[in-house]
Amino acid sequence: MANPTAAMLVIGDEILSGRTRDTNTGYLAERLTETGIALKEVRMVTDDHDAIMAAVRALSGAWDHVFTSGGIGPTHDDITADAIAAAFGVPIDVREDARALMAAHYEKNGIELNESRLRMARIPDGAVLIDNPVSIAPGFTLGNVHVMAGVPAVFQAMVQSVLATLQGGDPVISRTLRLDRAEGEIAGPLGEVAKRHPAVSIGSYPFIRQGRFGANLVFRATDTGLLNEAVAEFAAAFPDAAEI
Amino acid sequence: MANPTAAMLVIGDEILSGRTRDTNTGYLAERLTETGIALKEVRMVTDDHDAIMAAVRALSGAWDHVFTSGGIGPTHDDITADAIAAAFGVPIDVREDARALMAAHYEKNGIELNESRLRMARIPDGAVLIDNPVSIAPGFTLGNVHVMAGVPAVFQAMVQSVLATLQGGDPVISRTLRLDRAEGEIAGPLGEVAKRHPAVSIGSYPFIRQGRFGANLVFRATDTGLLNEAVAEFAAAFPDAAEI
Repeated sequence: MANPTAAMLVIGDEILSGRTRDTNTGYLAERLTETGIALKEVRMVTDDHDAIMAAVRALSGAWDHVFTSGGIGPTHDDITADAIAAAFGVPIDVREDARALMAAHYEKNGIELNESRLRMARIPDGAVLIDNPVSIAPGFTLGNVHVMAGVPAVFQAMVQSVLATLQGGDPVISRTLRLDRAEGEIAGPLGEVAKRHPAVSIGSYPFIRQGRFGANLVFRATDTGLLNEAVAEFAAAFPDAAEI
Repeated sequence: MANPTAAMLVIGDEILSGRTRDTNTGYLAERLTETGIALKEVRMVTDDHDAIMAAVRALSGAWDHVFTSGGIGPTHDDITADAIAAAFGVPIDVREDARALMAAHYEKNGIELNESRLRMARIPDGAVLIDNPVSIAPGFTLGNVHVMAGVPAVFQAMVQSVLATLQGGDPVISRTLRLDRAEGEIAGPLGEVAKRHPAVSIGSYPFIRQGRFGANLVFRATDTGLLNEAVAEFAAAFPDAAEI
């Protein structure tokens, strides 16, 4: 059976303005690859109700899982939970289980559960809470959409909470060869190796270091034997390739 | 008149597998913000013909400009140019102007213009070449889509080539206040300032440092007077806010 698929939706003006560099996508991509879930698409949208709603609907329909980051805090620009509820056509309001979690935590720490903070207990009907060991206010899973915070420490904790509940696939293994040659020199033989080994995905990632061209060739597969065959065939043609 | 809008499309399995962290989006976002062009959406897709084609069509129809990165090199997994031509329904083949640029450069450097390298001279009919001072093989603009390389040094050079030809908008100016308070404490008054200043976009970006919560509040507008009014109003309510 093919491995499960996933998409990531990053929500927030700060990413699109260039003010904040997104690190959540890279983190999620690595964790999913380890788990045997294939990340197939990423979208980033502004803090706009309709844009979030449209992206959630498209991604939720196309892939097995959708992971979102951002827009579930207490401020006026945090509109993700409402947009997700609208995308699924379900009501949303302060939910007692989420409120109780937060009330207990805030009381212990002498923090007031004011109206703004209470916004973080707004959970769409039918959603399952995602544990947030860092700052308590929960994320949630609605249908196949996992809604998480944008602050990297909280996002990462929530991803771990979610992944513990998901069925992964066969882990994808990879081997990487580095060549200090321009891609144009190796593209012909490489393409032939790729054609002869359809079960192995081969990517060529060029780089420039100190003014010289090189390429990392990444061989990926779920079957170790097939992977090693493809690598060996290429390495025979380019003995200067170094495994990294 | 509203500022022009743009989208970014990142193409490549290596980004989605987590092997390579995308830095091109952050670079483009900063350059566009300086230029007064609003980046509204980002998508990242795998090296898949149909996925690239569908994303290009959707983004090209929705926004004024689309910038793509990745997939225009000489190897078998470089399929972007063909997918863009297909998205616009135009033929693609080796074009004499692109071939001549590359032939002259390679001849000077004693490099063979082999069949693989010649793939990089495949340019859709009607496209305008984008200058590549780093490694010569050009990008191209077709309709409102600017197709560029994924290697960051080349991508950045091509972005500069393209931006020199585009009409920007009013630059967006911003001021940032840092508060060592949790968002939940400031969300109420902040929301009221946002409501009273519709011409100012106000984002709240929480962080956790050494176990303590804080937030950066970013005020953005094209009108300095309106921007300063909103900042002053908020700062009067929170004298501990520090401009950064």
